[in-house]
Amino acid sequence: KRPREYGIRFGVIPTGPLNAITDVPGVRVGQVTLLHGPNVRTGVTAVLPHPGNLFRQKSPAAIYIGNGFGKLTGYSQVEELGTLETPIVLTNTLSVPTATDALIDYTLTQPGNEEVRSVNPVVGETNDGYLNDIRGRHVTKAHVLQALWEANTGPVQEGNVGAGTGTVCFGFKGGIGTASRKLPGSLGGYTVGVLVQTNFGGVLQIGGMPIGVELGKFSFKEKLDGSCMMVVLTDAPLDARNLKRLAKRAFMGLAQTGGIASNGSGDYVIAVSTAYQIPHDSAEAFDQVKVLRNDSVSPLFMAAIEATEEAIINSLFAARTLTGDGGHTAEQLPVEKVVEIIRKAGQLK
Amino acid sequence: KRPREYGIRFGVIPTGPLNAITDVPGVRVGQVTLLHGPNVRTGVTAVLPHPGNLFRQKSPAAIYIGNGFGKLTGYSQVEELGTLETPIVLTNTLSVPTATDALIDYTLTQPGNEEVRSVNPVVGETNDGYLNDIRGRHVTKAHVLQALWEANTGPVQEGNVGAGTGTVCFGFKGGIGTASRKLPGSLGGYTVGVLVQTNFGGVLQIGGMPIGVELGKFSFKEKLDGSCMMVVLTDAPLDARNLKRLAKRAFMGLAQTGGIASNGSGDYVIAVSTAYQIPHDSAEAFDQVKVLRNDSVSPLFMAAIEATEEAIINSLFAARTLTGDGGHTAEQLPVEKVVEIIRKAGQLK
Amino acid sequence: KRPREYGIRFGVIPTGPLNAITDVPGVRVGQVTLLHGPNVRTGVTAVLPHPGNLFRQKSPAAIYIGNGFGKLTGYSQVEELGTLETPIVLTNTLSVPTATDALIDYTLTQPGNEEVRSVNPVVGETNDGYLNDIRGRHVTKAHVLQALWEANTGPVQEGNVGAGTGTVCFGFKGGIGTASRKLPGSLGGYTVGVLVQTNFGGVLQIGGMPIGVELGKFSFKEKLDGSCMMVVLTDAPLDARNLKRLAKRAFMGLAQTGGIASNGSGDYVIAVSTAYQIPHDSAEAFDQVKVLRNDSVSPLFMAAIEATEEAIINSLFAARTLTGDGGHTAEQLPVEKVVEIIRKAGQLK
Amino acid sequence: KRPREYGIRFGVIPTGPLNAITDVPGVRVGQVTLLHGPNVRTGVTAVLPHPGNLFRQKSPAAIYIGNGFGKLTGYSQVEELGTLETPIVLTNTLSVPTATDALIDYTLTQPGNEEVRSVNPVVGETNDGYLNDIRGRHVTKAHVLQALWEANTGPVQEGNVGAGTGTVCFGFKGGIGTASRKLPGSLGGYTVGVLVQTNFGGVLQIGGMPIGVELGKFSFKEKLDGSCMMVVLTDAPLDARNLKRLAKRAFMGLAQTGGIASNGSGDYVIAVSTAYQIPHDSAEAFDQVKVLRNDSVSPLFMAAIEATEEAIINSLFAARTLTGDGGHTAEQLPVEKVVEIIRKAGQLK
Repeated sequence: KRPREYGIRFGVIPTGPLNAITDVPGVRVGQVTLLHGPNVRTGVTAVLPHPGNLFRQKSPAAIYIGNGFGKLTGYSQVEELGTLETPIVLTNTLSVPTATDALIDYTLTQPGNEEVRSVNPVVGETNDGYLNDIRGRHVTKAHVLQALWEANTGPVQEGNVGAGTGTVCFGFKGGIGTASRKLPGSLGGYTVGVLVQTNFGGVLQIGGMPIGVELGKFSFKEKLDGSCMMVVLTDAPLDARNLKRLAKRAFMGLAQTGGIASNGSGDYVIAVSTAYQIPHDSAEAFDQVKVLRNDSVSPLFMAAIEATEEAIINSLFAARTLTGDGGHTAEQLPVEKVVEIIRKAGQLK
Repeated sequence: KRPREYGIRFGVIPTGPLNAITDVPGVRVGQVTLLHGPNVRTGVTAVLPHPGNLFRQKSPAAIYIGNGFGKLTGYSQVEELGTLETPIVLTNTLSVPTATDALIDYTLTQPGNEEVRSVNPVVGETNDGYLNDIRGRHVTKAHVLQALWEANTGPVQEGNVGAGTGTVCFGFKGGIGTASRKLPGSLGGYTVGVLVQTNFGGVLQIGGMPIGVELGKFSFKEKLDGSCMMVVLTDAPLDARNLKRLAKRAFMGLAQTGGIASNGSGDYVIAVSTAYQIPHDSAEAFDQVKVLRNDSVSPLFMAAIEATEEAIINSLFAARTLTGDGGHTAEQLPVEKVVEIIRKAGQLK
Repeated sequence: KRPREYGIRFGVIPTGPLNAITDVPGVRVGQVTLLHGPNVRTGVTAVLPHPGNLFRQKSPAAIYIGNGFGKLTGYSQVEELGTLETPIVLTNTLSVPTATDALIDYTLTQPGNEEVRSVNPVVGETNDGYLNDIRGRHVTKAHVLQALWEANTGPVQEGNVGAGTGTVCFGFKGGIGTASRKLPGSLGGYTVGVLVQTNFGGVLQIGGMPIGVELGKFSFKEKLDGSCMMVVLTDAPLDARNLKRLAKRAFMGLAQTGGIASNGSGDYVIAVSTAYQIPHDSAEAFDQVKVLRNDSVSPLFMAAIEATEEAIINSLFAARTLTGDGGHTAEQLPVEKVVEIIRKAGQLK
Repeated sequence: KRPREYGIRFGVIPTGPLNAITDVPGVRVGQVTLLHGPNVRTGVTAVLPHPGNLFRQKSPAAIYIGNGFGKLTGYSQVEELGTLETPIVLTNTLSVPTATDALIDYTLTQPGNEEVRSVNPVVGETNDGYLNDIRGRHVTKAHVLQALWEANTGPVQEGNVGAGTGTVCFGFKGGIGTASRKLPGSLGGYTVGVLVQTNFGGVLQIGGMPIGVELGKFSFKEKLDGSCMMVVLTDAPLDARNLKRLAKRAFMGLAQTGGIASNGSGDYVIAVSTAYQIPHDSAEAFDQVKVLRNDSVSPLFMAAIEATEEAIINSLFAARTLTGDGGHTAEQLPVEKVVEIIRKAGQLK
């Protein structure tokens, strides 16, 4: 059961039908989970903004760096050109090169890309080295390609899956989480979907409640560190500048959960609009685009904050206790206890 | 009574003795309040990092821009050189040039500065044009100089005072707020002090509780917009790079109160270390500095988040209902009702 | 005579008819020169991108910071929103607040702006304190307003005029300079116009020739420091992202003249497109814009480099020997000697 | 023969003994050249700032992005933490993941790194796809490791070597180039060394002379595009902030050669100080550093500009005509003709 089904409230904007990043039309997610032996606890999560050839039909995009202690690839070209030309892949820290290479394979072999000699893969990561034999680099190019080819619309699995298989968050088992918001028609009717890979620390808050304090588990009391990757998709027509602003609001959603973006954190947000594409080749010298005005973007900002907060908490509710490398165990969040705390506070709907 | 005296909790780190920015040794605050006639509702708040000649003994500093719809001056030189060479002055949007000019006066006339021909004033602002006749530009250089010369250590007045005289926050009367955190000795024993000028919107949360929702007052239900200036002082020895990271955490504290950094927001954080100074002139070609290592800064990050959250809520608790320009009124936060909500939720200490 | 009339070559792209920033249709320049008594050697230069109400019809714009030891105002809002809402004013370092305040006056009093309560003035500066009694702050709001109201299309005066009245460049008398490039129709036919306020050091090169070396006057041989303000206008339809890239190329043009962007330099480029405007108010939630594709912008980059280089050299050729504050004298560039050097090298056309 | 041996002048500061990046004490360079069959024209160039374990003894570093159309890895962590923890590797665009993975191997297997679970490889690239079968991805991890292990002090090979094997610059064969400057003792006596991988376009200038124009080969007359990687090492004690400023000056050196940083260019500068290291682990909470004051850095800026300009021209003089993929040929710069042009202009020493 997801937190919302327990009656926990996250903000004031309604969710999309699946409360998932796939509520944004055309968005697909693919996940490959590596969970075998005593210490392979890792995987791959891929997000594809649209069903076409992304290299030929690039998506407007931006990347916001909350805290840059991480190994995300592809930052500077997205920043310079304002477009994304590959799917987004998430994995573990030391498998970034493998995933990057797989995205090159993926791009070079797509029909229509026979002459492509340059491509900018976007790969994010968090470090699952507490539960996973990360030095073993168990992710292969085949795993990444599988995640890409099997990606689909519809519900998204959360918790110990894909790139979240081995992550730890607020001292509990973390993982993949997702959520969405759908603005009312009067505010544009747009959907904002978020997917997160949670692997960070701080002082956990759920629906505002100081859960970390109540459970006695928080940063500097215990050693809690780590990172969070956030992917934000929207069908609102935003250009790269406003997508960067939207991405920054996802980082504010992380703050809402009690995350502190500690020194060792690699906190990145990749924001992409599905509303239009920028063709790789064009007979025209111009791009003709219809984008939301600056003074129409604030509701989207709030949607990104809320959806990111909920996606993070969703990841914790879905994750399950896991033992891995070196015999380390990450316990799952004691959901019943958490719900009870919130219920007692009268904060369940 | 401040929120903490009601038993409201803000994080886990203890405060300094005054729970104010002036808990950082040597820091002084000066405020001049302009509140007369039907529509003059504005003022000046000055923060001085150390008692010496700031131009000759510059403080390491950084500025983080949360949302840049604002008119702060001095950004690029602080970013380039990593130092602050004037006090920080906050006022209203259209009085920034007056305050800037006053800081030039202040600097040129200080003993020892007889040959100074260039100085980089740092002036921040929010827009108090709802309650204040902002187009009248009632702040004079004399007001700014008065705030500078009367600045003092000790308790800091909060609410409708200084640059917070006419501000509005979360739909209630905003103002000046301050708070501090003192790390335990095991984490360095440093103090982080924050002062805020609150004038922004979102969905108000206090101690995690969804107060804005309970009171039926939040963004996109009502028109709430605006800005927040945050000043962070610390006696921890940080250089400009880590001060910028610290500044960013104050912005996370804003997120904790439910702020959304809307399109029209000018959200800036100025972070300054008092641990050492960089002399304007030196016989040496070198600066010899002892700075905290990257992996020692995370507790300061958490302190900045907590202190900023509390400073913002402090501003709301201290502010009083005010009527001003055009007969507009900003009601004060219904403190008793708020406390009751939190009490009922069992969230008072 | 301008350098080009001597046969000195600057790049390969043809100039516009005036070889001035005013070759960009609709652009107006106004200058007020303060040159009286023994030590008043300063002024104001204003650039207006279009003849309408700039606050109501904002121009797409970006600011690039080459070296940030300067006091330019307005940076963060241009960066955040991608638009310019006031004329650009250049003056001396300590008169920035006066000019900023004058731009507020200008904006508040324009018909249609009766309700404006927030405006983001863009004011740049260099430090003319060697020749000018800069501490006297002789520029008044009236001077700034005069420059704004008298601004006109047509030829632009260069040398000891406006904000360039008292500046020093490469050890010689600097000043205001301007130049333009007009791309051939096959590359879009756009015009790029540049205006500079030159006050910096390095190792002067003209048409590639090492003039500074030949004349024995260059940085670290002599004490040469300072700043350069560059304003770039174009009728090419660029959004803020590509305007920022264009602005960066102007800084490359500065490098072409032998400028080194020394520690003490405040080198800023403000780039503005006149091709379209973003209305302050709109019944629409959208901006519909037709912008140049990324892969069409490179010729504009080259045009900005060439025009900036030439504008800087133009400022040196036009400037005249001037004595000012403290009896300091800045000699004009020995033009005949320079031309002879280049002629001897066979580098005159 | 290098250009300087012909008497061509590059600035005013003397070179180090080798006029190479290896003039900075302790710096080693390793190169592996892949040049076989009809179309393998690529390679690897590695730069090691100091002979120790870089992960355990990190070097202060910064990365400046001139134009971000490139695939450099490692940017955000260097930016966030101010340190470099692997050697710098340059290769072709599509081999970046392979090189990144090899740097992970290199780091994980170094004695002392047995517990390392996170490392931030810095790999730069340019696109040699005109001469090289870049889609074949012929660089292997073994090639990269070989470049790392064979790296040495002493003279550095230039031209068609390592990562420069297949590059094209200003329409001529490009490659690897290097140069250095040694400041006089009065300015600190520091050395600045630069190594470049040249693959870009513009209007070639050599010693100021408009060679591209004279030879009738320049951008927009011919199709010239591409990228430049620049590595700057210095023994001056700079922190990350001033290293970033130094890096930006290398980009100004690129401008001096007539480079225009076209839309398709990936122009990156990695600047590293060898003057001190930041230990990975420390019993201390502090780093005690002695760094150059802001007002002492300008001579280093000029040194970086000069050395970068010369390194680029060195790469062109050393490169040799090469035929590769698809039968494409890049002709070498007609050195004798170039020297004759400069000689005629009286610009040879």
